[in-house]
Amino acid sequence: MKPIEKVAIVGSGLVGRGWTIVFARAGIDVGVYDSDVTIRAEAKDRIATSLADMKSAGLIDDVDGILARIHVVDELEGAVAEADYIQESVLERTDVKTQASLAIDAVMRSDAVVGSSSSGIPASAFTQACRNRGRFLIAHPVNPPHLVPVVELVPAPWTDAQVLPWLRAEMERTGQAPIVVDREIEGFILNRLQGVLLMEAWKLFEEGYASAADIDLTISKGLGMRWSFAGPFETIDLNAPGGVRDYAERLGPLYQSIAKARTDPKVWSDELIARVEAERRSILPETELRRRSEWRDRRLMALAAHQKDQPR
Amino acid sequence: MKPIEKVAIVGSGLVGRGWTIVFARAGIDVGVYDSDVTIRAEAKDRIATSLADMKSAGLIDDVDGILARIHVVDELEGAVAEADYIQESVLERTDVKTQASLAIDAVMRSDAVVGSSSSGIPASAFTQACRNRGRFLIAHPVNPPHLVPVVELVPAPWTDAQVLPWLRAEMERTGQAPIVVDREIEGFILNRLQGVLLMEAWKLFEEGYASAADIDLTISKGLGMRWSFAGPFETIDLNAPGGVRDYAERLGPLYQSIAKARTDPKVWSDELIARVEAERRSILPETELRRRSEWRDRRLMALAAHQKDQPR
Repeated sequence: MKPIEKVAIVGSGLVGRGWTIVFARAGIDVGVYDSDVTIRAEAKDRIATSLADMKSAGLIDDVDGILARIHVVDELEGAVAEADYIQESVLERTDVKTQASLAIDAVMRSDAVVGSSSSGIPASAFTQACRNRGRFLIAHPVNPPHLVPVVELVPAPWTDAQVLPWLRAEMERTGQAPIVVDREIEGFILNRLQGVLLMEAWKLFEEGYASAADIDLTISKGLGMRWSFAGPFETIDLNAPGGVRDYAERLGPLYQSIAKARTDPKVWSDELIARVEAERRSILPETELRRRSEWRDRRLMALAAHQKDQPR
Repeated sequence: MKPIEKVAIVGSGLVGRGWTIVFARAGIDVGVYDSDVTIRAEAKDRIATSLADMKSAGLIDDVDGILARIHVVDELEGAVAEADYIQESVLERTDVKTQASLAIDAVMRSDAVVGSSSSGIPASAFTQACRNRGRFLIAHPVNPPHLVPVVELVPAPWTDAQVLPWLRAEMERTGQAPIVVDREIEGFILNRLQGVLLMEAWKLFEEGYASAADIDLTISKGLGMRWSFAGPFETIDLNAPGGVRDYAERLGPLYQSIAKARTDPKVWSDELIARVEAERRSILPETELRRRSEWRDRRLMALAAHQKDQPR
């Protein structure tokens, strides 16, 4: 299989626009399509705004060069027919993903590859009926993909064996951080790790051990600082003189004991959700959510710029 | 209760030295004691080395001024007797903590406060017999405390009610990020959150879904980037148009379903530990652990310097 020269982006919302930047920044020609005329029409302007922000943050130089590689098209076929790789980022609903996959399948080259940005629905749930189903898999990013590099690659049972290593290498070439999930599992890896941490955080809040704000600080002023450059295994490997075995023998029993006390997970009740929401809205009024999301994106951009200069 | 003017550090290993920097950097006089003559003798030189590194990273200016506020003493009483606050950082073992607490108790002012750096043993397990037990509580830092600001404050059932809010304010004044844990719980907040994430990470590795290196990337190139400036509650509050309620209603069912599949936690078997260790040692030989820990500390220092200039 050859290196990617042309990419098609199907779905040009927030995720699709991020992917567009990822590939165009890597020097690849990108055709962008969205079935919604309005979203399609505004895509290039919104991408240009993001690129200007990235330039201010020192993340890119040649905004015009990147923009010149991006072509918004009015027909799905115009983007997909000649693409080596198609990144599908339509709404996260099985029926919508199925319809988009069949439409892509009908016009794609049989040797192209299709990655879906699905964050939870596995590829087997929406690609079974595709003629080229061996070329489909999950390529799940974190938002926004041009600032947060991880991508989870998850094959369906029928994904061709050579697709996964090829896409991993291609994603690395574009500057992303692909990881391989061996087979389908609910929530893949990333949202399972986020999920177990959230379940414990909500439980500690519910039981009155700490406020949501204080639980947040244990991560943002504590564990999250380490985890922004070293994953959980590397962190513990460096946190005991004898490495990961030493750590596992010392602290494994504590963690297993904590887990044994949490074997009856409950749904988050309306009353619990209301309490968490009340605390969050007292810190950040609803009208400020959007402004704070923009702050988050600026922080991510500044962090990405900071990390560029750090030794690995 | 008055602001802290004099601090005593009991135990001058890695944690105690970090605490020494925290308080001396904040303009407070610090008396340092360790029962081990060698550790005590090298404390000031090692602190001076850390301060030089911090100055290079742009974190502090006046190294000599900070060093001038640090006095290593040869008797416990010399550090503790006049201290307003005593930070105990001896070995994490109940018998050692009990002995140290009784020794401090015998020479402390009755209106002083003693915080223990214990990462898991609650204060009720080693302060019951102290005359001044109402002045003892947990003040658990992350390593190293002069670079990672979070501190968990956990009272024993007998801790005086005014101690906790006083210490929270004083810790904030020194530049730390204190959080209040309402009452004792195994692992406090921080290690419970780390523990549930690690339990899931080890299980996913054991079941062959991904390598330890790829699981690490989902955090270090994904979730950890966000979590280095926004905690888990703020992260999800900003990750759905309608805030935390919107997010909880969309994604709560997925996380609860994941948790329901993990209600039979197991100890990490020797064979499993050996497999994790084998992968880690293939990435990082045992002889490189120390060098890599120094890299981690430099990364933390650079991250702290980066964060100083960021909007909150």
